[in-house]
Amino acid sequence: MSALEQVDSAINFPALQPPHRYLFGPGPTMVHPRVYEALSKPIVGHLDPYFIQVMMDCQQLLKTAYGTEAGATLVISGTGSAGMEAAVVNFVEPGTKIAIFANGYFSDRLTEMAKRNGAEVVRFEKAWGETYTDDEAREFIRREKPKVVGYVHAETSTGALQPGNAICAAAHEAGALVIADCVTSLGGVPVEFDRTGMDIAYSCTQKGLSCPPGLSPMAMSPRAMEWLRGRTTPSRSWYLDLKLIHDYATVSHRYHHTAPISMFYALREALLVVADEGIEKRWERHRRCHQLFVKGIEAMGLSMHVPEEHRITTLNTVCVPKGIDEAKVRKRLLDGPGIEIAGGFGPLAGKVFRIGVMGPLATEDNVRFFLSEFGKALKAEGYGQ
Amino acid sequence: MSALEQVDSAINFPALQPPHRYLFGPGPTMVHPRVYEALSKPIVGHLDPYFIQVMMDCQQLLKTAYGTEAGATLVISGTGSAGMEAAVVNFVEPGTKIAIFANGYFSDRLTEMAKRNGAEVVRFEKAWGETYTDDEAREFIRREKPKVVGYVHAETSTGALQPGNAICAAAHEAGALVIADCVTSLGGVPVEFDRTGMDIAYSCTQKGLSCPPGLSPMAMSPRAMEWLRGRTTPSRSWYLDLKLIHDYATVSHRYHHTAPISMFYALREALLVVADEGIEKRWERHRRCHQLFVKGIEAMGLSMHVPEEHRITTLNTVCVPKGIDEAKVRKRLLDGPGIEIAGGFGPLAGKVFRIGVMGPLATEDNVRFFLSEFGKALKAEGYGQ
Repeated sequence: MSALEQVDSAINFPALQPPHRYLFGPGPTMVHPRVYEALSKPIVGHLDPYFIQVMMDCQQLLKTAYGTEAGATLVISGTGSAGMEAAVVNFVEPGTKIAIFANGYFSDRLTEMAKRNGAEVVRFEKAWGETYTDDEAREFIRREKPKVVGYVHAETSTGALQPGNAICAAAHEAGALVIADCVTSLGGVPVEFDRTGMDIAYSCTQKGLSCPPGLSPMAMSPRAMEWLRGRTTPSRSWYLDLKLIHDYATVSHRYHHTAPISMFYALREALLVVADEGIEKRWERHRRCHQLFVKGIEAMGLSMHVPEEHRITTLNTVCVPKGIDEAKVRKRLLDGPGIEIAGGFGPLAGKVFRIGVMGPLATEDNVRFFLSEFGKALKAEGYGQ
Repeated sequence: MSALEQVDSAINFPALQPPHRYLFGPGPTMVHPRVYEALSKPIVGHLDPYFIQVMMDCQQLLKTAYGTEAGATLVISGTGSAGMEAAVVNFVEPGTKIAIFANGYFSDRLTEMAKRNGAEVVRFEKAWGETYTDDEAREFIRREKPKVVGYVHAETSTGALQPGNAICAAAHEAGALVIADCVTSLGGVPVEFDRTGMDIAYSCTQKGLSCPPGLSPMAMSPRAMEWLRGRTTPSRSWYLDLKLIHDYATVSHRYHHTAPISMFYALREALLVVADEGIEKRWERHRRCHQLFVKGIEAMGLSMHVPEEHRITTLNTVCVPKGIDEAKVRKRLLDGPGIEIAGGFGPLAGKVFRIGVMGPLATEDNVRFFLSEFGKALKAEGYGQ
């Protein structure tokens, strides 16, 4: 490179200086300084005994976060969507019937992945933000007799939490495996993998665990593992082949792919931050901040999109008041105090704000700070005038 | 978590303190301090204008590394193997005939992925470490008339570099697209994407670019992009759907998945480190260190596995001398000076050492340090006695 080109490069690519953001969106969340420190530790090789231990530590720590003793935990080298695809390509063989509870964007994504993988998909449609009663869940599964059932535990696009006990019980009665999307719940709200009866769950690192995005922690029940071991055709995906990944991560440690070392360092530290707080205390902190948040929102004359008993405590969907352009409110928050929140999309486009109160930001002071700035931005856009 | 459990957690999970390693293996390599610093910068959201710019910077900087002006560059949120799978699922439709030059492990992996994706695979088999002449390449492609041709530019399992010009010319004559595995070449040896005539190339971050592992930079020719736009069936993978990823990364910036923010920060910085050195100077530095390395190896009475004119300058395969247990030599290097190198596998198991001289370690001092420690370890295991 000539000297001139070097000058050009300095002009075109200024030093990395990310603006400070308060990440009050649905994820990524703020990251604990300990996690940033772990990220920048010197890497070792992906077959180094030290790294193998880091991977195994993550697996062990994930058991507490997921609430599983008997299940196997595993980390996929891709984001939450890679975890979803891993669940589909490994447990939904082409031609398999999968029954999906379809009440938001991520059940649509699950549908799309299942279809691309050659599955027969039947859907129980509900409006975005609604949930299913135990009776509805049972009736659907008994009628459809699927081989696999899929539902979204905490639906990021709507803010609704779907209890899984009745779904899992009915699925097991029908001999079906249950895939549960826990992308927004893990680490922030109770997942209770074993108690609920989930068979395959996947999540991400950048929401309830407050780690940067990049990995997908999964859990699999003994039933799921047994099914996987008995599967005779290889999954269509080699990269997401859970038999091979499980062997690399927990059994032989034989090379499968070069794991993202730094991201595993970060995940281990994020899980230790969770463990140091105590997972139940962490849930409780999020619950408390959620209540304060809702109280503040209602005091401003605003309303929540999801009925009280079905809300995700870490991710709030607030209805956009009539006459307000939600995109302008978001831009004002980002450009002013540097607060990121998200809008709705699909059927909820323009209708809700999606506001996460997760991880380091889930404190009473931060909630008050947010409510104050949110109120100012709404007012500036004409709310309450 | 009770106080007792907290004590337990501190005992079971000591603070993250990775041992210092000299990464002389086939990757990951050592990482520049600037890259570690970038990794630990505060994250922003994946739809934040700042992050979109970071992603676009990576794409632009990758053009120089790949040697493409007309091609599109893109970064996949997975490791090099995810890039390989993205190439296959997007460009090799089920039933498509793909011709693979099969002379090492990564062409076997490419074969496996193509088969799992329903392709008809024909292979031109050669021993691990051999390469193909222009005549052989032409003859194979003219005979097989495939729709896609796959070859490994720099074969990590053997240390052999395969020139691509004749392969690409013959493929284009047959109307076929060319997939080139550049996992070990990008950033360390010339790829020359445009000049060679590649259509789809994928790589990793942790070898020639000296960034931690976790992302896969890709390049696609205008022919490949045109083919992709004209494809009427969706790819079997949603996570690796290049149409959707290309749209998120370069066109509409509409949400596809939550990109690994910190890893993109790191990749941008690693690419700037490369740009500051100048890609041609970087290749030259690796060439010079490779020559010094080979000279030293031969002075020790050892021999290289690959003929001189076909060696990858960043990754050396050194024959294991008779009577020496290569695993013991590697263990001695790891436990003593903390040097990581790799062994051979498949047909080369026990027969070669795989030694990378890449990135920050590619200096004359480091090569001399390595040769000295390698000599001591071999001697301790009985070599030359």
